[in-house]
Amino acid sequence: MNRPAFVLWFTGLSGAGKSTLAEAVARELERRGVNHEVLDGDVVRENLSKGLSFSKDDRDINVRRIGWVARTLARHGCIAICAAISPYRAIRDEIRAASDAFVEVYIQVTLDVAEGRDVKGLYARARAGEIPNFTGIDDPYEEPLTPEIVCSTADQTVEQSAAHVIAECVRLGHLS
Amino acid sequence: MNRPAFVLWFTGLSGAGKSTLAEAVARELERRGVNHEVLDGDVVRENLSKGLSFSKDDRDINVRRIGWVARTLARHGCIAICAAISPYRAIRDEIRAASDAFVEVYIQVTLDVAEGRDVKGLYARARAGEIPNFTGIDDPYEEPLTPEIVCSTADQTVEQSAAHVIAECVRLGHLS
Repeated sequence: MNRPAFVLWFTGLSGAGKSTLAEAVARELERRGVNHEVLDGDVVRENLSKGLSFSKDDRDINVRRIGWVARTLARHGCIAICAAISPYRAIRDEIRAASDAFVEVYIQVTLDVAEGRDVKGLYARARAGEIPNFTGIDDPYEEPLTPEIVCSTADQTVEQSAAHVIAECVRLGHLS
Repeated sequence: MNRPAFVLWFTGLSGAGKSTLAEAVARELERRGVNHEVLDGDVVRENLSKGLSFSKDDRDINVRRIGWVARTLARHGCIAICAAISPYRAIRDEIRAASDAFVEVYIQVTLDVAEGRDVKGLYARARAGEIPNFTGIDDPYEEPLTPEIVCSTADQTVEQSAAHVIAECVRLGHLS
């Protein structure tokens, strides 16, 4: 049987850099030969939650589903790297409590920075009222109070942030 | 990295014995120290598809979600044992096509036998019109045309069926 792995949960605003950093961490795990899977919020939504809205209730359902798949994978020795805004603290803590091992990575950027990037043009559409319940605009983002890892992607390259995440996972005893 | 495993997909009428046989096969894999997970239709529905109905569209969505989780687990070296009525051939074949390795186990019992067991009292409720779209009553069950494995749970003990499934998985080269 495989050794249990852990859930590596990236949370932060849209545009904070969650998916980019998740992919960079995945590349480093690949290089090390460590079993892993990236569960990106958008991809999971397509496969598990099509039809759900971005209301609080539907977001909670989507995030819970990611959490369920992630901890199932982790139980079978696969590091489950999740990248989802997951704006509500209570749901993240619920998933933490249900997981055998959970590492929360807060991608900390200001709304100004995230909105300034606006890679997908979503903030502009949200400001124009075209996307309701947009996190940071008309829906809250609840910062983690005691995340295991904090990354400030505004001050670091992707490579620096990825190296920080890996180093912290080692320090926490989840990676050797 | 783990070696890829396979999706072991049990299909058949309600009451055919899918969950019972899936658990028996899981116990044997446990005994052999082989990494596995049972994805039972009812359990997955609770975690991934709460709120979905038993209409054809909603059943398809639920079965597709089980398939997505199953092949993700299989990619990471975990034998994903799925037990879901999965009544429609096209959706099962779609999941087969999307999986790296897929073994379909048809639990073949007549409607008479399945309805005669009626462990959960569901057939009685379906006959009384309390459960619409019930497979075998007012919704079709499409038999697999070329399943890798057929089990006739009416003529075999659970142990015999489980031994047959394991032996066939070995013969097919999926287990050693």
